[in-house]
Amino acid sequence: MVGQKWVRLVTAQTPTNIAVIKYWGKRDETLILPVNDSISVTLDPNHLCTTTTVAVSPAFDRDRMWLNGKEISLVGGRYQNCLREIRKRATDVEDKEKGIKIAKNDWENLHVHIASHNNFPTAAGLASSAAGFACLVFALAKLMNVREDEGKLSSIARQGSGSACRSLYGGFVKWIMGNNEDGSDSLAVQLADEKHWDDLVILIAVVSSRQKETSSTSGMRESVETSLLLKHRAQEIVPKRVVQMEEAIKNKDFPSFASLTCADSNQFHAICLDTSPPIFYMNDTSHKIISIVEKWNRAEGTPQVAYTFDAGPNAVLIAHDRKAASELLKRLLFYFPPGAGTDLNSYVIGDKSILQDAGVHDMKDVESLSPPPELNDGISNQKYPGDVTYFICTRPGHGPVVLCDESKALLDPETGLPK
Amino acid sequence: MVGQKWVRLVTAQTPTNIAVIKYWGKRDETLILPVNDSISVTLDPNHLCTTTTVAVSPAFDRDRMWLNGKEISLVGGRYQNCLREIRKRATDVEDKEKGIKIAKNDWENLHVHIASHNNFPTAAGLASSAAGFACLVFALAKLMNVREDEGKLSSIARQGSGSACRSLYGGFVKWIMGNNEDGSDSLAVQLADEKHWDDLVILIAVVSSRQKETSSTSGMRESVETSLLLKHRAQEIVPKRVVQMEEAIKNKDFPSFASLTCADSNQFHAICLDTSPPIFYMNDTSHKIISIVEKWNRAEGTPQVAYTFDAGPNAVLIAHDRKAASELLKRLLFYFPPGAGTDLNSYVIGDKSILQDAGVHDMKDVESLSPPPELNDGISNQKYPGDVTYFICTRPGHGPVVLCDESKALLDPETGLPK
Repeated sequence: MVGQKWVRLVTAQTPTNIAVIKYWGKRDETLILPVNDSISVTLDPNHLCTTTTVAVSPAFDRDRMWLNGKEISLVGGRYQNCLREIRKRATDVEDKEKGIKIAKNDWENLHVHIASHNNFPTAAGLASSAAGFACLVFALAKLMNVREDEGKLSSIARQGSGSACRSLYGGFVKWIMGNNEDGSDSLAVQLADEKHWDDLVILIAVVSSRQKETSSTSGMRESVETSLLLKHRAQEIVPKRVVQMEEAIKNKDFPSFASLTCADSNQFHAICLDTSPPIFYMNDTSHKIISIVEKWNRAEGTPQVAYTFDAGPNAVLIAHDRKAASELLKRLLFYFPPGAGTDLNSYVIGDKSILQDAGVHDMKDVESLSPPPELNDGISNQKYPGDVTYFICTRPGHGPVVLCDESKALLDPETGLPK
Repeated sequence: MVGQKWVRLVTAQTPTNIAVIKYWGKRDETLILPVNDSISVTLDPNHLCTTTTVAVSPAFDRDRMWLNGKEISLVGGRYQNCLREIRKRATDVEDKEKGIKIAKNDWENLHVHIASHNNFPTAAGLASSAAGFACLVFALAKLMNVREDEGKLSSIARQGSGSACRSLYGGFVKWIMGNNEDGSDSLAVQLADEKHWDDLVILIAVVSSRQKETSSTSGMRESVETSLLLKHRAQEIVPKRVVQMEEAIKNKDFPSFASLTCADSNQFHAICLDTSPPIFYMNDTSHKIISIVEKWNRAEGTPQVAYTFDAGPNAVLIAHDRKAASELLKRLLFYFPPGAGTDLNSYVIGDKSILQDAGVHDMKDVESLSPPPELNDGISNQKYPGDVTYFICTRPGHGPVVLCDESKALLDPETGLPK
């Protein structure tokens, strides 16, 4: 087979996800085994996803990877774990059209090229590693004809980045922490697909930050080592919340879903604050957004919007329906208009039709927004242009897919190098 | 006695205090009984104190009170509780010089005038109610010749404002939560007087805030009702920390004192965040100050400064000694220079000699401060003029005292009305 010139490619697209019951703390750092179950919503890959092309060729002399066009090292344990676990499970591949035949045993001598691209800024703190590792594992599994189900693949993706295991499915997903020491039962299952509750609208506020942030890997290690509250959360609080959240999702019970989501986000950040030294992911803008949502929910008598924040200041806001989402957008645009030099078209991205729903067509409409009645007390009406970088409007979405259209591939089908 | 014209006055001065093991949560709202013990440092009344004059006269037709020159209502339960408890314990008073004689039984028919004044801005979130109720109870007890010890008085002051009980002593004070349902054993004791550990220097950063804050009374009620972490903190964590903190104070063990102080402040704010709706007392400036202190402590290998934050964004920074305090002030002035139009003289108040120790004599010296070496990474060197309103330099101080100098009285000795 060596000396042959063929290149076999697979391109896949995988969504990112946002946890509504948070993962924070590992019981095993190498295998990435969590201290509690977590639950997430998969976000529509049309707005937030990773695309990865993997290639194999007898001409490749080593494994290589390019992330967003730049070659990166594969030396880290996380990539190696994923590659090793997938290679172990490779089976015979035959592509009659191209005349390619790879036997199960050939895979240990073949090298791969990987190119990965996010359709959103990597630095924005939008769970790029979750979508990235899920996509890597999914694409490699397709390339190598791995016959495991998504659950098994999720447990491999987990070894790249914990939350990646939840990106193997669309809709609503639970990462079961598992009990086995080898991590074999720590995997994701789908609770419901994205069609189950398709009223939900998700608005992400990408918040400008002046602080350097603690990585979630080192942050959760420090929390496990120093927070006296973390163990109590993981052992006593989260198990009950997971049951309640599953029930809320099953019944599309938005008030319960919202109150659990908000409470669990706040408790995760409470654990960060209880860490030594303390970790602050939310900033004054995050706090202001929470305050806007809390006051509005209270004024309406029943929750319209849930908020949740990951390891950064960005707000992920889950609205009950499009009406609530457009009301929310009007409130947010009132307090956080675009900064100087930013136009509305680049300020609200993703599903831009939400602007029409909100009746906001241009900057004049933004300027003439009225202060939300529940907050119209003079003090709260200060505006903070520039404190939000942009908004993304999206919804719950589907799981990983293979892209058959070769024009979508990130690697050249002849050379196996980035296009 | 009615128809007589005499006025009897007592003027007292009482310090404020800062908790290093925090009080957050009541088990009884009316008696103000806490869910855990707390420990505080009394601050030097020369820099932060309440002065209260109480007066009695047969000519007064009702109880009245003036706070910072403005008459306020005494109808609230908190004032009534303190007045009732002190009146109950009043004894015979004889002032031969003025020819005044009040029998124990007369007190129930006599009214009092109260005037109280803080030597620091009430709105600045510097525990004005603690000093205020302590001073009210202490002054009334002197006026009415109450023969109870400070412990008993502290349990009366507690019924005005929980943390007030800790302002009945100087130095280091513990509020024992007690077990009795009637609150009789929920009182303060002195752990050590202010001379025990007189190296400590305290620097308070009064932080500008753009948010309306939740009062500590309603905040702690909401935490007790909604935080799933509070009970665990109160029952499992604080009891151990109190023992460790007493040991650290006894041994003047600054590293332990600092690490317990910081951890407990952070945990209190974690509980606030775990409350529904979440309570944010610290803001981005508070976070920045914590980050400056944490990085410096880490760079030095052993803590130089402890930080603690109450129900607001102000930082209370406790430095190991004057050298550490002056190093700290240089760091803080580097990042937080006075805003436009603020001069150094009104920017660092209290014990201004710390400026000499820091070698900072004028604004030119502030401008030429070097970035702290441990933070000199380019990113951290942004300055935030105006984010701190002013600094107060102080130290641990003594407990309540009676001011014999009649010129210090806030009420006119003839009329019993504010001067």
